[in-house]
Amino acid sequence: MPATRVQKLRRLGGQSLTTSLADIALVAFDVDGVLTDGRIFFDEEGREMHAFHARDGLGMVLASLRGVLLAAISGRYAPGVKARLVQLRVTEIHLGISDKTAVLEGIAAAHGIDMAHTCFIGDDVNDLGPMGAAGIGFAVADAHTEVLARADRVLRQAGGQGAVREVLDAVFRARRVRLGDP
Amino acid sequence: MPATRVQKLRRLGGQSLTTSLADIALVAFDVDGVLTDGRIFFDEEGREMHAFHARDGLGMVLASLRGVLLAAISGRYAPGVKARLVQLRVTEIHLGISDKTAVLEGIAAAHGIDMAHTCFIGDDVNDLGPMGAAGIGFAVADAHTEVLARADRVLRQAGGQGAVREVLDAVFRARRVRLGDP
Amino acid sequence: MPATRVQKLRRLGGQSLTTSLADIALVAFDVDGVLTDGRIFFDEEGREMHAFHARDGLGMVLASLRGVLLAAISGRYAPGVKARLVQLRVTEIHLGISDKTAVLEGIAAAHGIDMAHTCFIGDDVNDLGPMGAAGIGFAVADAHTEVLARADRVLRQAGGQGAVREVLDAVFRARRVRLGDP
Amino acid sequence: MPATRVQKLRRLGGQSLTTSLADIALVAFDVDGVLTDGRIFFDEEGREMHAFHARDGLGMVLASLRGVLLAAISGRYAPGVKARLVQLRVTEIHLGISDKTAVLEGIAAAHGIDMAHTCFIGDDVNDLGPMGAAGIGFAVADAHTEVLARADRVLRQAGGQGAVREVLDAVFRARRVRLGDP
Repeated sequence: MPATRVQKLRRLGGQSLTTSLADIALVAFDVDGVLTDGRIFFDEEGREMHAFHARDGLGMVLASLRGVLLAAISGRYAPGVKARLVQLRVTEIHLGISDKTAVLEGIAAAHGIDMAHTCFIGDDVNDLGPMGAAGIGFAVADAHTEVLARADRVLRQAGGQGAVREVLDAVFRARRVRLGDP
Repeated sequence: MPATRVQKLRRLGGQSLTTSLADIALVAFDVDGVLTDGRIFFDEEGREMHAFHARDGLGMVLASLRGVLLAAISGRYAPGVKARLVQLRVTEIHLGISDKTAVLEGIAAAHGIDMAHTCFIGDDVNDLGPMGAAGIGFAVADAHTEVLARADRVLRQAGGQGAVREVLDAVFRARRVRLGDP
Repeated sequence: MPATRVQKLRRLGGQSLTTSLADIALVAFDVDGVLTDGRIFFDEEGREMHAFHARDGLGMVLASLRGVLLAAISGRYAPGVKARLVQLRVTEIHLGISDKTAVLEGIAAAHGIDMAHTCFIGDDVNDLGPMGAAGIGFAVADAHTEVLARADRVLRQAGGQGAVREVLDAVFRARRVRLGDP
Repeated sequence: MPATRVQKLRRLGGQSLTTSLADIALVAFDVDGVLTDGRIFFDEEGREMHAFHARDGLGMVLASLRGVLLAAISGRYAPGVKARLVQLRVTEIHLGISDKTAVLEGIAAAHGIDMAHTCFIGDDVNDLGPMGAAGIGFAVADAHTEVLARADRVLRQAGGQGAVREVLDAVFRARRVRLGDP
């Protein structure tokens, strides 16, 4: 369970950055390995399936009701992933992205959100950029060792097992929302 | 393994409620995260798959032979879930439900079963209502922390790994049915 | 790893039965929960998928090359299960069976194999009959508690993770076949 | 995490062989149980699905950018496996192979790579040949006991959970590539 406040040095400019969980307005995350357990199922025609967790799903529906902006930023494009994200009412869906940091900064700017009030949840080395640029960079419990070492916080939950929900619950709790109440 | 008797304070009215496992006539449960491990598989066209455990299935078939009423109450609607529940002869199938407590009370009333003789198995915060209203509220082993904290009993089995079977076996045992006999 | 010899009391007649792994000529097993991890995947049209392990598969191909007769006896009928069993060259495939003991005895009789030279691998209470009737009754590591308690031997591997292979390797080893050699 | 140097006796000729991870030019691997967790999903028509891990995928894309040759050598043929391997830009794809050692030696010869500069990642007894012939023979963490016993190195990761990535990262690290940089 993350504490409510993270202090970090921004890489560019070197100024100190303190982010409170209660101030997080944008929760951004990678998809494969974060919203899923990293497994991609292939059938005989090369079509893919991905497995999402129902408890992440409920947390994401609650987030949109509670005014927390959600953004999915994935390096891969997969149509089934898009279908699930639309179903969960994720506002910002960006798949097939090579420069995840630029996309995260663009989303924050478009919604008038300071980067200090964003967080990013990642699992692999191509998530290190947005994790460093965001106010808080979270790693799922089973992330790549390099990502575990460089994250601001390591989550208790593994990817696809409720890691995104864990962050959302921490934000809700910091805002003093009772978790049992929709 | 649950003990045979649960004492709890009902939230409404505050009267004390003692439920014996041997008196349970209705076993109700959520689907995603309870009858499954919470994962929902999406293919490229956004169609879903869910994974059910064979040992839950055998327990449910035995339950209907032994006169234990089964009710599935899920917040989501999924056609594959319905197909599996019909195959398992679940009498009461309620999918896409927002007020699970009202549905549970309606099922109990329709079958002339006292709420003290019902139980509900849940995994997430939208199960807290029916878990509180039922005679016994069970949480699967890997439930949301809030649900683990507020359950009358926490099961040894995780969702989708035989948690429903664990409750059914406890009821059968309390009724002195030999588990090895169909 | 099972020792090479099992002594048990047959339920009928009460005579003592000693079975050596080296004498096993027929390896019979349940499917769901033994050759799979018990999960049955349902899609939106109610069609099923089952997950088999490649290491069980290689063991079964080696068994047929080495003259060990294989028999699958399942209470459920599933067409995908049949396809996989045919692919693995399982000689005796019996799905949708209610009296598994009778089928096991029929297979042994048809091939002229003494019941003392058979084994059965199970995971749930409807496997207790053939487990008791066979020379050795094996339970997978994650079997139902009643099955774990009444098995002659409990395997190290869980269902769908190589439990059938573990038995086949023990038979091969008792026959002094080098495991690394096809 | 493997150390950077492996010394082994070649079975043929008995000469000593020392392979440094930094000199590995060809990373070859089995598919089922190495690039997947060994599970093969069968639907009602007998069609297969396989689950690959996204972190293995990213490692394999990075490998081709960094000039490490990849080769998949599997005893089974599965069209979905081929689709995934093509997507990951695996140069050498050999499915349905009975003599894996001969294929590995053929690939090395065709690319002018000394066998001492190859490695092979396996999980089952039909991988022991190429594991012995390669400069380094790796076993996934959940490999068959015989394979664990005879491997030059046992990986921390199980099959399908990033075992191939673990080898690639070790090669990248030995070459002093920063893991966080594409």
